[in-house]
Amino acid sequence: MEKELHFERAEFVARLAAVKKEMARRGIDILLLSEPPNQNYLTGYDAYSFYTPQMVLVALNHDEPIFITRFMDRISGVMTTYLADDNIRGYKDEYVQSTTLSAYDFIADVVKEVGGEKASIGVEMGGYYYSAHAHADLVRALPLAKFVDADLLVNWIRIVKSPAELSIMRQAGRIADAMIKRAVDTIAPGVRECDIAGAIYHQQMSGTPDFGGTYGCSCLMLGVGERALAPHAAWTDKPLPASTTVYVEVHGNRLRYQVNLSRTICVGEPSSEYQKFSEIAVEALNAGVESVRPGRTCSEVQGAFRQALARHGFEKEARLGYSIGIGYPPAVGERTASLRKGDETVLQPGMCFHMMPGLWLDNKSIAITQSFAVTESGHEALTSTPRTLFVK
Amino acid sequence: MEKELHFERAEFVARLAAVKKEMARRGIDILLLSEPPNQNYLTGYDAYSFYTPQMVLVALNHDEPIFITRFMDRISGVMTTYLADDNIRGYKDEYVQSTTLSAYDFIADVVKEVGGEKASIGVEMGGYYYSAHAHADLVRALPLAKFVDADLLVNWIRIVKSPAELSIMRQAGRIADAMIKRAVDTIAPGVRECDIAGAIYHQQMSGTPDFGGTYGCSCLMLGVGERALAPHAAWTDKPLPASTTVYVEVHGNRLRYQVNLSRTICVGEPSSEYQKFSEIAVEALNAGVESVRPGRTCSEVQGAFRQALARHGFEKEARLGYSIGIGYPPAVGERTASLRKGDETVLQPGMCFHMMPGLWLDNKSIAITQSFAVTESGHEALTSTPRTLFVK
Repeated sequence: MEKELHFERAEFVARLAAVKKEMARRGIDILLLSEPPNQNYLTGYDAYSFYTPQMVLVALNHDEPIFITRFMDRISGVMTTYLADDNIRGYKDEYVQSTTLSAYDFIADVVKEVGGEKASIGVEMGGYYYSAHAHADLVRALPLAKFVDADLLVNWIRIVKSPAELSIMRQAGRIADAMIKRAVDTIAPGVRECDIAGAIYHQQMSGTPDFGGTYGCSCLMLGVGERALAPHAAWTDKPLPASTTVYVEVHGNRLRYQVNLSRTICVGEPSSEYQKFSEIAVEALNAGVESVRPGRTCSEVQGAFRQALARHGFEKEARLGYSIGIGYPPAVGERTASLRKGDETVLQPGMCFHMMPGLWLDNKSIAITQSFAVTESGHEALTSTPRTLFVK
Repeated sequence: MEKELHFERAEFVARLAAVKKEMARRGIDILLLSEPPNQNYLTGYDAYSFYTPQMVLVALNHDEPIFITRFMDRISGVMTTYLADDNIRGYKDEYVQSTTLSAYDFIADVVKEVGGEKASIGVEMGGYYYSAHAHADLVRALPLAKFVDADLLVNWIRIVKSPAELSIMRQAGRIADAMIKRAVDTIAPGVRECDIAGAIYHQQMSGTPDFGGTYGCSCLMLGVGERALAPHAAWTDKPLPASTTVYVEVHGNRLRYQVNLSRTICVGEPSSEYQKFSEIAVEALNAGVESVRPGRTCSEVQGAFRQALARHGFEKEARLGYSIGIGYPPAVGERTASLRKGDETVLQPGMCFHMMPGLWLDNKSIAITQSFAVTESGHEALTSTPRTLFVK
């Protein structure tokens, strides 16, 4: 089976060294990573197998990580990780959704194998793939160990992207651009919402002539007219009326790196009031994006946006954006830095964000957004779709 | 805002009564449901908002459930649930991915409001959306309450589908059929894997001329040639060779009800050995499906399949299938009954399963599957795609 690695081995080794350094600083002997993006970051692993128990074990006293998954998915580990064969372990299928067996017993046995019976063990307490039950099982199976919360430990390391990662983020951005173009091309009176969704998904996977895309970390967001007031509603199969607005948030995804992009598209000429509203949204977005540079904080960037918006009498309570990078369902963000008041994270070159100034008022909404990377001197836009209200 | 309900109010009321009866039987005063399919089942709620804390509270002493979500998603609650406005609560955006605030404090306050400070509280310990951290926060916020594991309590009730639910399952099956047809139509030498994925996704959302589809509970599974040995691998952007096999598992999804369907499609004429292999797979599948009837156990159905397979010298260790119905990412199944040895669940009319006899051998694999509903006298196929190896 041919190895499918998207980064040099040296890059994985450097990532691992950074994680081990932070483990040592916190007094963690063994780190158990249940979050799929963190597993991908440290080993390269990629398959849709995380709905059953799966873990990457990093031990200070063990050179490589050990990847533990369901036996039938072990082959994906062989295909997609740089790990030695012996560091890829599969548990039997009888553990899957069993009422009598726990895969965490199997995982605990690997912990013991690397001498972790009495270790200080970091677990991702707030992750999506570490349930209350998983934790209880692991604590029961390792009664002498000391468990500490290491949630987001790896997330805060991978928030700064390497040049190789930024290349992939740019590809994801090109896919996002192609998806918005496809949406604008498809949207017309009489077209069913579900057919617009279909066309956009088609583009997401087809990607560009140069490289393909893949599934996103969340579903497409598509809201027509009043339904756009609900930011995460499902689409329907109704045909578009002759005059309305269509809100889309697309997720360009290349090799699990995701770039998000939203636009509102008018069907029929917008009212002059709505046109003005869109210009204010763009002005505030631009003010936010232009304020980005290393050394500034997330809070300061949000402040630049908020001030521009306030000049027109608008306020936005929800956060303005979030860090983006490697992602798996269900969440599009990295769960680290947020562009919001009070977030004192200092911007560094290589960080990437989706600035998402969606304005949801009582009776109208608009979304014109921008994903960007922080550079040495400011920012680099990760998409090139014009920042404007599209009209069909 | 117009209500978008897909079931009669009486159906929601009956579901709630069944859940309350089981709560009373187990001595649970308040049930906190964090799993999106269970929230949908009891209230109708549907939006892609479950990546932040979200809960449906069912209290024996409170008529309707109370739905708690992020403030910006409250409007989706108004749109998609039958609940009274006062039973739809939104917490402020500052709780989202905060390092200092916990939305579970907000949820605990609602528990106190319905008199639950010292109650017996059921939580879904093994769910995807109830992290170890969520549980710790809730236990801290309600120190006098008694927490009990109510994981799967609702899942085991919704395993039996009503006539209205079965109608929707049939629609999901028609979408799955259309997706396989689209796959067969698209597959040809030289077509990139990502473009095949794109076409199938297009069909998934477009659905049929009569009704649209929506996003699935997992990504499409698409494996070409040797890569099909990895059941959950991502697709690539390589063009198909002149002769290979393509494995697809599609997910027809209608109003969150999902029907799964897999086929292997040969590009170029299969070897007579592979053709024979496919006939054995179909024979065993048919034996399994034909054995379905109320009163039989899941284990017995698997036995019928296993015996047919054994006549040709093959064994399958992994489970043969799983219960299907309402789903949200990340998991396609209901996490209840499995068609496998030792599962003594007795089949009842209205239960639905995906029988998934994927055969993954060392050097070849095939998947020809069937989703079905249990009827009064046997089974009803939920898809009509022929059970055969397709050749392009």
